[in-house]
Amino acid sequence: MSLLKRIKYLIKKFTEKKILLAIAESCTGGYISHMFTNISGASNVFERGVVCYSNKSKVELLNVDLKSIEVAGAVSETVARQLAYNVRILSNVDIGIGITGIAGPTGGTKNKPVGLVYIGYSTKEEIKIEKHIFQTDRIHFKELVLEKVLEYLEHITL
Amino acid sequence: MSLLKRIKYLIKKFTEKKILLAIAESCTGGYISHMFTNISGASNVFERGVVCYSNKSKVELLNVDLKSIEVAGAVSETVARQLAYNVRILSNVDIGIGITGIAGPTGGTKNKPVGLVYIGYSTKEEIKIEKHIFQTDRIHFKELVLEKVLEYLEHITL
Repeated sequence: MSLLKRIKYLIKKFTEKKILLAIAESCTGGYISHMFTNISGASNVFERGVVCYSNKSKVELLNVDLKSIEVAGAVSETVARQLAYNVRILSNVDIGIGITGIAGPTGGTKNKPVGLVYIGYSTKEEIKIEKHIFQTDRIHFKELVLEKVLEYLEHITL
Repeated sequence: MSLLKRIKYLIKKFTEKKILLAIAESCTGGYISHMFTNISGASNVFERGVVCYSNKSKVELLNVDLKSIEVAGAVSETVARQLAYNVRILSNVDIGIGITGIAGPTGGTKNKPVGLVYIGYSTKEEIKIEKHIFQTDRIHFKELVLEKVLEYLEHITL
């Protein structure tokens, strides 16, 4: 099934269950929000997206702890966790998603290579962080992250 | 020239001139941010994007006056103006862009048809609001808005 068809199905399901979603995305730069909002009726489910590209925007819009960014780096498990949890709480929605990574082709290091991405998921019941390494071009990188997000949302029971 | 090539050229120019950009997009749902961040080096120019899909997010993240939304509607010149101006001030950047419209296919009225969109541009020197009606599908609608944004940015002198 195409990505858009899967999103369409999710929006139908979440609309019926009255589940709201908010997304804080750094390295995917608005792509996840864009794909959800390509579907008519997305506004029943998609409450807001924040493209927190700069560290300043992560702190100002999503209350990420500046100390965490300084110590662990913007691309880290702790920042993904804060993005997911905080966007859920601040938006007062059921599911918060936080994404931070290195889309490349520059910006990689030995410990944090290009393609590294942390995806955080927060609900009232749980918080979960996935770590992946997707070494490809910027656009395909975004698609691979979206696939992971869809897999999570398709299997969640709320 | 393709949209991506035009964005690439803009990012190069703005990087050299140290011009920063922030975008508040409602009906385009993250597409403008997504397209800018497809270009490597976007982080030198693109400070943040806010996908303020719900009215609540327009008020909470961008200080849009709730009264304006109630009186003029979320899709209005005054809201586009506030989105553009406020995202610029809140992000402390050189150019703020605010977009609000009705992507359709539902949500249109006689006075505010599907395809109506207001695009606000704010710099230290000026504030400008464009009104367009793009009656097409949701994805092409987003592309047409992006073209207008690029035309503005290509002709701006800062």
